[in-house]
Amino acid sequence: MTPADTATPTAARSRYRDGLVVPSTGHAPGFTQANLVVLPRDWAYDMLLFGQRNPRPVPLLDVTDAGSYRTVLAPDADLRTDLPKYRVWRDGELVDEPADVTGLWRDDLVSFLIGCSFSFETALLEAGVPVRNLEQGRNVSMYRTSVDCRPAGRLAGPLVVSMRPIPAALVPAAVQVTGRMPQVHGAPVHVGDPASLGIDALDRPDFGDPVEFAPGDVPVFWACGVTPQAALMGSRPPFAITHAPGHMFVTDVPDQEYRQL
Amino acid sequence: MTPADTATPTAARSRYRDGLVVPSTGHAPGFTQANLVVLPRDWAYDMLLFGQRNPRPVPLLDVTDAGSYRTVLAPDADLRTDLPKYRVWRDGELVDEPADVTGLWRDDLVSFLIGCSFSFETALLEAGVPVRNLEQGRNVSMYRTSVDCRPAGRLAGPLVVSMRPIPAALVPAAVQVTGRMPQVHGAPVHVGDPASLGIDALDRPDFGDPVEFAPGDVPVFWACGVTPQAALMGSRPPFAITHAPGHMFVTDVPDQEYRQL
Repeated sequence: MTPADTATPTAARSRYRDGLVVPSTGHAPGFTQANLVVLPRDWAYDMLLFGQRNPRPVPLLDVTDAGSYRTVLAPDADLRTDLPKYRVWRDGELVDEPADVTGLWRDDLVSFLIGCSFSFETALLEAGVPVRNLEQGRNVSMYRTSVDCRPAGRLAGPLVVSMRPIPAALVPAAVQVTGRMPQVHGAPVHVGDPASLGIDALDRPDFGDPVEFAPGDVPVFWACGVTPQAALMGSRPPFAITHAPGHMFVTDVPDQEYRQL
Repeated sequence: MTPADTATPTAARSRYRDGLVVPSTGHAPGFTQANLVVLPRDWAYDMLLFGQRNPRPVPLLDVTDAGSYRTVLAPDADLRTDLPKYRVWRDGELVDEPADVTGLWRDDLVSFLIGCSFSFETALLEAGVPVRNLEQGRNVSMYRTSVDCRPAGRLAGPLVVSMRPIPAALVPAAVQVTGRMPQVHGAPVHVGDPASLGIDALDRPDFGDPVEFAPGDVPVFWACGVTPQAALMGSRPPFAITHAPGHMFVTDVPDQEYRQL
C-alpha cells in the first residue's frame, strides 16, 4: 500500500470497498473520521434523544433517513461497504466482524455518524501539544466513570472518557484547542484527578491501551465516543451494526469545518 | 405588577401560573427564555431529527420524556401551567390560546425547549451593539427565505430568519458576540444582501414588525426559532401545543451558560 492509496477520502473509501481491512488512523489526513452506529428505526428515537441529552460524548454529525446508506458527510459513499471493518451485534452480543454489510442491510435501518477524537488529536499536534498515544503507537486509554449519562428511553449508562497525558504547561492550550471543537467532543470534562471520576488505576484502562506518562504530564479526560456503544450494548437491541474499533468512516468533511473560529 | 414580581425565574413562572398573561420580554433578566413545541410521541422523532439536521434555526436545549411536564432547564417548573400563554393546534390550525394546558395534557406528549434570540440580544446590548427592535418597542422582523431546511420525515420548510439593523462598524462585533452562542442560533447566516436570501422588501416582514434603520445600519440575518413552527404547522400534525409568540418559557439557566468562553 502506498500512501497515495489512502491519501484522500475517496481513495481511502475505495480501497476499503475493494477489501482493504486496516485501521483508518492516518488515512486521508485533514478529513474528519466518524464513529458509526446503525440501529432499527424502533431504536433510533432513543439513540437520537441520548445524543441530544449527552452532546459531549455523543456529538451527532449526521443521522440518515431509515433505509438509506447515504450521508451528507460524503455524498458518494456507501455506508454498507465503505468502512474498513464492521461489527454486527444481535441482542447486545458481538456476532461477526465483516468487511461489508450489504447482505445485512434492511430498509428500517438508521445510521448515526458520531464525531471522533481523531479530529482533535490533529488539532492538538498542530498547536504543539504532544499526543502520547500517537507517539507510543498505542490506542488511547479509555475508562468507565462514576458519572452517569442522562438516560433516554431504553438507553442508560456511564460516561466513558478517553485520557491523554498532557505536559502541565500545555494543559491550557489543550483545553482551548479542543474547546473550539464541540462537535468532536469539545473541551475536556476533567483535568488532573482520576479519583473524582471514579477511576482507580490509570494504567488499567477499561478499553484501549495503557499509555506512558512523561515527567510533568497531567492526566486530561475527554468525553469519549465509546459512551453510546456502551449504553447501547448494555440495553441489548435485537440488531445493530457499528464500525470496528479504529476502523472508522472517512468523511469528505475537512477537520477545519468542526473548528470554531 | 412591580418589577420584583417577575425579577427571578421562579417569581415570573409563579405569576404566570397564577394567571398573569403578558409577553415575557424583560422578565427574569439574565436568564434564558425558550420556545416551546409539544407534540405526540408519534411526531417527536421527526422533530428531533429536524433539530439535529438544522441546529442553527432549531437549537434544542431540552427534550422531555413522553408524558413528562418537567424539564432539566427548570426542575421546579410545570410546563403545563408556567408559560404566560400557549397556542393549541389541531391538524395545523390554531384553535385556542389558553393560559394553562393541564386539561389537554396526554401521556404521549413530548416537549421540545428551543433556544431563543432573547439571549443573544442581551449579549449584543452588553457589547455596545444597539438592538433597534428593542429601542423602537417592536417585535423583531422575520422573513421566510428561499433557503430550504434539510427535511426530516414529514417536516420540511424554508429557513426563517430574523433581521436586525446593525451599524456597519459594529457588524463584526455582532457576528463575534452571537457566534459564541451557538445554542441560541449562533452567528448570523447572512449579512447585507436580502436579495440573496430571496427577501424582496425588508419593510414587509412575514412575521413580526417592520423595524426602522438608522443611517449607516446594515441588515444582519440570524436563523430564527419560527423555522420549526413553520415546518411543523405546514405538515399539519393532528395535535400540537406551542408557546404564544413572545410568551416564552423562562428557565433557571443563566444566559452565561450558553456563551462560549
